[in-house]
Amino acid sequence: MQFHLNGFRPGDPRISEPLAAGERPLSLPEETDVLIVGCGPAGLTLAAQMAAFPDIRTVIVDQKTGPLEQGQADGIAVRTMEMFQAFGFADQVKREAYWVNEATFWKPDPENSAGIIRTGRIEDTEDGLSEFPHVILNQARVHDFYLDVMHRSPQRAAPCYGRRFETLNRDQKGVTATFTNLTTGKADTIRARYVVGCDGARSGVRSSLGLQLEGDSDNAAWGVMDVLAVTDFPDIRLKSLIQSKEEGSILIIPREGGYMARFYIELDKLRADERVRERNITADHLIAAANRILRPYTLDVKDVAWWSVYEIGQRLCARYDDASEGVLPRVFIAGDACHTHSPKAGQGMNVSMQDTFNLGWKLAGVVRGQYPEDLLTTYSEERQAVAQELIDFDREWARVLAGKTGSEDDRFDDYFSTHLRYTAGTTIRYAPSRLTGDDTAQDLATGFQVGMRFHSAPVIRLADAKPMELGHVAEADGRWRLYLFGSATDQRLRDLHNWLDRDPTSPRVRYTPEDADPDAVIDIRAVFREGHRALELAEMPPGLLPRKGRYGLADYEKMFCPDPKADIWTMRGLDPRGCMVLVRPDQFIAQVLPLESQGQLTAYFDGFMLPQRG
Amino acid sequence: MQFHLNGFRPGDPRISEPLAAGERPLSLPEETDVLIVGCGPAGLTLAAQMAAFPDIRTVIVDQKTGPLEQGQADGIAVRTMEMFQAFGFADQVKREAYWVNEATFWKPDPENSAGIIRTGRIEDTEDGLSEFPHVILNQARVHDFYLDVMHRSPQRAAPCYGRRFETLNRDQKGVTATFTNLTTGKADTIRARYVVGCDGARSGVRSSLGLQLEGDSDNAAWGVMDVLAVTDFPDIRLKSLIQSKEEGSILIIPREGGYMARFYIELDKLRADERVRERNITADHLIAAANRILRPYTLDVKDVAWWSVYEIGQRLCARYDDASEGVLPRVFIAGDACHTHSPKAGQGMNVSMQDTFNLGWKLAGVVRGQYPEDLLTTYSEERQAVAQELIDFDREWARVLAGKTGSEDDRFDDYFSTHLRYTAGTTIRYAPSRLTGDDTAQDLATGFQVGMRFHSAPVIRLADAKPMELGHVAEADGRWRLYLFGSATDQRLRDLHNWLDRDPTSPRVRYTPEDADPDAVIDIRAVFREGHRALELAEMPPGLLPRKGRYGLADYEKMFCPDPKADIWTMRGLDPRGCMVLVRPDQFIAQVLPLESQGQLTAYFDGFMLPQRG
Repeated sequence: MQFHLNGFRPGDPRISEPLAAGERPLSLPEETDVLIVGCGPAGLTLAAQMAAFPDIRTVIVDQKTGPLEQGQADGIAVRTMEMFQAFGFADQVKREAYWVNEATFWKPDPENSAGIIRTGRIEDTEDGLSEFPHVILNQARVHDFYLDVMHRSPQRAAPCYGRRFETLNRDQKGVTATFTNLTTGKADTIRARYVVGCDGARSGVRSSLGLQLEGDSDNAAWGVMDVLAVTDFPDIRLKSLIQSKEEGSILIIPREGGYMARFYIELDKLRADERVRERNITADHLIAAANRILRPYTLDVKDVAWWSVYEIGQRLCARYDDASEGVLPRVFIAGDACHTHSPKAGQGMNVSMQDTFNLGWKLAGVVRGQYPEDLLTTYSEERQAVAQELIDFDREWARVLAGKTGSEDDRFDDYFSTHLRYTAGTTIRYAPSRLTGDDTAQDLATGFQVGMRFHSAPVIRLADAKPMELGHVAEADGRWRLYLFGSATDQRLRDLHNWLDRDPTSPRVRYTPEDADPDAVIDIRAVFREGHRALELAEMPPGLLPRKGRYGLADYEKMFCPDPKADIWTMRGLDPRGCMVLVRPDQFIAQVLPLESQGQLTAYFDGFMLPQRG
Repeated sequence: MQFHLNGFRPGDPRISEPLAAGERPLSLPEETDVLIVGCGPAGLTLAAQMAAFPDIRTVIVDQKTGPLEQGQADGIAVRTMEMFQAFGFADQVKREAYWVNEATFWKPDPENSAGIIRTGRIEDTEDGLSEFPHVILNQARVHDFYLDVMHRSPQRAAPCYGRRFETLNRDQKGVTATFTNLTTGKADTIRARYVVGCDGARSGVRSSLGLQLEGDSDNAAWGVMDVLAVTDFPDIRLKSLIQSKEEGSILIIPREGGYMARFYIELDKLRADERVRERNITADHLIAAANRILRPYTLDVKDVAWWSVYEIGQRLCARYDDASEGVLPRVFIAGDACHTHSPKAGQGMNVSMQDTFNLGWKLAGVVRGQYPEDLLTTYSEERQAVAQELIDFDREWARVLAGKTGSEDDRFDDYFSTHLRYTAGTTIRYAPSRLTGDDTAQDLATGFQVGMRFHSAPVIRLADAKPMELGHVAEADGRWRLYLFGSATDQRLRDLHNWLDRDPTSPRVRYTPEDADPDAVIDIRAVFREGHRALELAEMPPGLLPRKGRYGLADYEKMFCPDPKADIWTMRGLDPRGCMVLVRPDQFIAQVLPLESQGQLTAYFDGFMLPQRG
């Protein structure tokens, strides 16, 4: 954590200096750069991202009258934890959440088919997949953390609650949106350069674009309940998949706090035209079904914190924006507005937040004049493909879960095992594009796959010998990270540094405004091969001690060395020849390049960035 | 983190349910159980501790008009981090603070005596000393974290600012204290059962007891400054001890945020009767001195966040309470009111907070009727001895630091190395007493030394396979922890559990009120020898799944197994025969006993606890 660059300031360093005295007014302004409709996980991820930029006007609007108190989603994949780290609240989530460490499988007891027995037990998250655990935490708390990020920002941003979305009109210069103020009943109008609909499965923004969710329901009905209960089922504090012989399946997800658990309970198949809500199912029905499936164990429910019934359906929107031939996008949709799926794979909230984490830096960069408007088409391209993959996965998963399989059928465990990496969110790979380079130099860093998320590893910071995770230097601040791996004595590394620092064709020079800190756009970090006690700061390339802020202070946090206990060079398959690993603001790897490939680095940025000098 | 025991409640689980609607009034009430004078580290540690008990009335008063914005103390020893963990904010401190990982030594350059060269570099905190790092963080932020703990408590506790302490009158039933309300100028009077003076080196509470700080100054003058500077001194981000040939010494302590550093600068020796403040020293003098000592390096100071000058003095109060022959204590002093020393060993704030962490649980237990009043005499006994040791240490340390030694003198490094454990705060050992048992069974757990702090180690929680630190089950809640180490199949362990749960002579039964949760007073945790996948919950002693709260829910967090990656049995020298390790509410080890020593356990608690039943 860095602060005090421009002088000592007392108080919580997580709270930025305010732009102006007093809080932002909660009445809807007449105009804004970015208008976000909906305060769910997708909307708040975007709002928190935009709050990092004091020069962008952002408004987030929600129909509710205040923050969510109890959410329905709860699974937080390791990939999402990595993103939370960039927003600064992963530690608090780790502390508060349930950790999904292992999963067990239960099947009909071959010796007593009315009962169940445990048939398997596996690690939920394989060792080394991420530095973070897979956790479970109430969606409402995730909202709280984002609201806290917004509140600490220079704008002291907060949502405008109590506004119902009504209409959207796009013209050549922007978008006009209207809302009903639910307190006064009057209409509110706002002009925005860009509008993002994060308004859920029944998205009004999506409808106004004439887009639909496409797909179908498979008529499988499920119940879900969060309960405080007394039970003799031994795995109540483990993620457990239970398949009974005759009574259906249960998925148990223990919840945060040590006492609560979520039960997903299979209900009878629906008729083709039937909706589960027509059946008048109550929480007592769910509890009775759970007891039948769990036999010989019993579940004595003391308190039902929340419950619901739903049909499994996988539906997807064909595109996520309003672009058309020759027309660049101005209106976007994200999260449940684009894709719905069954909750049991724990993917919904995660994919929604990753949607807007993908969009956020692009939108911010366009508003700030860093990128041309057409970069925004990559949002729908990249994220729609991810959702298609998710839908396919979820459909298969739902079939497996619903299958009343006998104990001789091992599909269940196998399927689960092989897909844990998928549910961890770490397998997403963006296809080659303007933003995702080719893999011709991939052999220089086999653990940093182009198109996939940057996989952190331990390092020692050179200047203060601090053991830390390299990936945690990445904050949700819209900046690019260029990691240079090499020997401190490698002349190519020095040449590259000198070029990056000074050459007018270097992207660092070309795309950083004259009056900005040298790392304002591209944040360069070096990871040496040598141990940290073997190197002298004074002998390192001067660009790695960049001078910043009003006093021109040196930033000592750009250089790293291997941690002898866990060598990043080995862990990430780094070739001794060294390389550059370029990482996007959303933590995805854009390109791996040889140290001498200045030209390719230039070509990459020249492909979509707007020069900031002369 | 456990919550939802008595039903689901939305919102931040760190915020307790309030005792009543609305905030506690900030006017001084007429009476209280505990009155704390002074909002420094000692006072706030105590106030945060008392805030854990909704049934105790506590008032904390300070002369200042609001929270501290910039503190002088900054060093946080690993032992203090362990305590912060119990208060719930160690993670936030880790995130925000500077980590002291290594220290370097600089001495006159033998080839150029006007210059200095680096002569040594050592690890600051040896591997395995604690799971926490040694860190540096502004005292004001530590205050903020305690205020936050208080604010989240059932009482929504907050200090009464703007009251100057005037007088104290003790009578048979309590204490009457008077304050001047600095806003109105009027006198305020409050009756308290106990008063704790945490009001600093010039403590009014201490004076009113007729006690003095005894000791002297050694006439060595030092300057201290927190600066933002540009320098070519390479170790500016490492703790560095620099001894020049002719110009004196500097200790550099890098500060949080990446840019600020603290300089302790040796000034000229004072005359016997001289005070350093008489010399009209300015920040510019300090900067000039620093530049002379650092030669050939330069220090270009851009901003001085804080500076001061002081004489080194070590002074100590002979006792910490108002007890006398036949009279039990009602008034206590803690922190700087009892002991002052030079700041450079980074001990002051740490020892002060440990003072009141020692006092807090005793005071709370006496007010709640758990312990007799005479237990309170152990506070002065235990903590005065610790301060005497600190003073002795500090005197020697100051001499070493001030010595203008040549490069051939290695005392500096050696002294530093051997005392790092001391400055870590982990060597404190309370002498045998009512509270500190004998060491006859010490060989059963050589890594859990009786009288010393409980040294955490990694474990896997049985019910949910969570990897965690065993020591982190200890919260600052006034409870005792009884760790049972043994094989799950050991009959002695089962007999012990049964006895603890049900026998009327067991301390768990005898000292826990009938209507309280079974772990309300003594929190029993088992650490088995077997791996967590080898054990079935249903076969464990039922007392290890205690039923709690309004619904009688089972607490699944009492049983642990070794982490195969770091086996606690090996790391803490645990004998395969197993043992009990009894830990006080302040994390100090009270006793190590064989598993069959019910009698000794009973005798220990019977020595000072008041029965709560029949």
